[in-house]
Amino acid sequence: MRAIVLLSGGLDSYTAAAIAKSQGFDLYALTVAYGQRHAREIEAARAVARRLNVERHLELAVDLRAIGGSALTSDAEVPRDRDVATATGIPSTYVPARNTIFLSLALGWAEAVGAGDIVVGVNALDYSGYPDCRPAFIRAFEALAAVATRAGVEGARFRVHTPLIDLTKADIIRRGVALGLEYGVTHSCYDPDPSGAPCGRCDSCLLRAKGFAEAGVADPLFATRQAR
Amino acid sequence: MRAIVLLSGGLDSYTAAAIAKSQGFDLYALTVAYGQRHAREIEAARAVARRLNVERHLELAVDLRAIGGSALTSDAEVPRDRDVATATGIPSTYVPARNTIFLSLALGWAEAVGAGDIVVGVNALDYSGYPDCRPAFIRAFEALAAVATRAGVEGARFRVHTPLIDLTKADIIRRGVALGLEYGVTHSCYDPDPSGAPCGRCDSCLLRAKGFAEAGVADPLFATRQAR
Repeated sequence: MRAIVLLSGGLDSYTAAAIAKSQGFDLYALTVAYGQRHAREIEAARAVARRLNVERHLELAVDLRAIGGSALTSDAEVPRDRDVATATGIPSTYVPARNTIFLSLALGWAEAVGAGDIVVGVNALDYSGYPDCRPAFIRAFEALAAVATRAGVEGARFRVHTPLIDLTKADIIRRGVALGLEYGVTHSCYDPDPSGAPCGRCDSCLLRAKGFAEAGVADPLFATRQAR
Repeated sequence: MRAIVLLSGGLDSYTAAAIAKSQGFDLYALTVAYGQRHAREIEAARAVARRLNVERHLELAVDLRAIGGSALTSDAEVPRDRDVATATGIPSTYVPARNTIFLSLALGWAEAVGAGDIVVGVNALDYSGYPDCRPAFIRAFEALAAVATRAGVEGARFRVHTPLIDLTKADIIRRGVALGLEYGVTHSCYDPDPSGAPCGRCDSCLLRAKGFAEAGVADPLFATRQAR
């Protein structure tokens, strides 16, 4: 059974994809190069796709920098040193309609390859507060998919799987470690330096560090980098 | 007031955009180069955007050919000489999730420029039977937009305007002629010859010809081409 998995190169999507694989899905991995300032992600996605032994890895380019409206797709400063445990509101790293665009592309590919399942590593607990990571968004997308597609009209049901949605970052990491995932190849930083090294101060770095700390696991990303 | 208009280069989106303009919207035109075999459309969209005097015309490339699953994005034959008045079912020119992808991109741009309105020239009467041209699809997309975006969460409401959805092709043409539109610059054919000339036999050509005939108007496309 085929599933489309959105693979960003971060640890969440790696874990979500690995869970789907452990459930028996053949993985069709989709990575979107959207003009993100952390294009280092794309290389990480390739490494993750290899480790997951996916059936296919499709990279699509969509220039969301032309649309703008986000610190991730412009030269605006990425927020740093926030207290991610207590931060509220939607930060400037929100990319307008990003997950809607990504899921739409996944839906198109799903229909083209006869997959009824889409897997996405969104998480509504230890996350950046993005609206398009919440269960209400996922349910609305499933409702859309049912009426948007030939397959839906013909009676197929598209399911969007969010195996991480209720997990803390620490839970996600524990789950991934149990599955034998190699998190050293992933990339989470919103604003890496030119060498690709994580900044350690953006929300994404801080959430990752908090997760590893709470899971009681050393982040292999740093061991991997030091070993280079 | 700003509105995003999806502009394909065909006569429907031109007319829908012109109606929105006549209602006072400042137009932000979005054209997606998706790897369609009728890339001649893109040039037509530029000509249409100039005539509409849009505020901005954004062209985004998304390679749906990599996704496949349609005669419009592959080398599969486009259906010809069908009786478009009586044809049923969804033809092979359906592009998986195309309008979902297009509306998602429009939604992202809308949010980035502070527009709450999206205009799309879908039509559920004289059309090719695509699921993503129906009112149920549009309503589902509006419901998604409300939960997918920062603006939606903050209380904004995105509206997707479909001024042509209940019109026949002849009605659309009459409406456009009354608005003074220059349909000679539009392009409708799914499979033009290398010079860009319409085939005259695909569903899109046949629906267009039927519309002009029923409206009692000569299609200026042919006069324009002959005058070159």
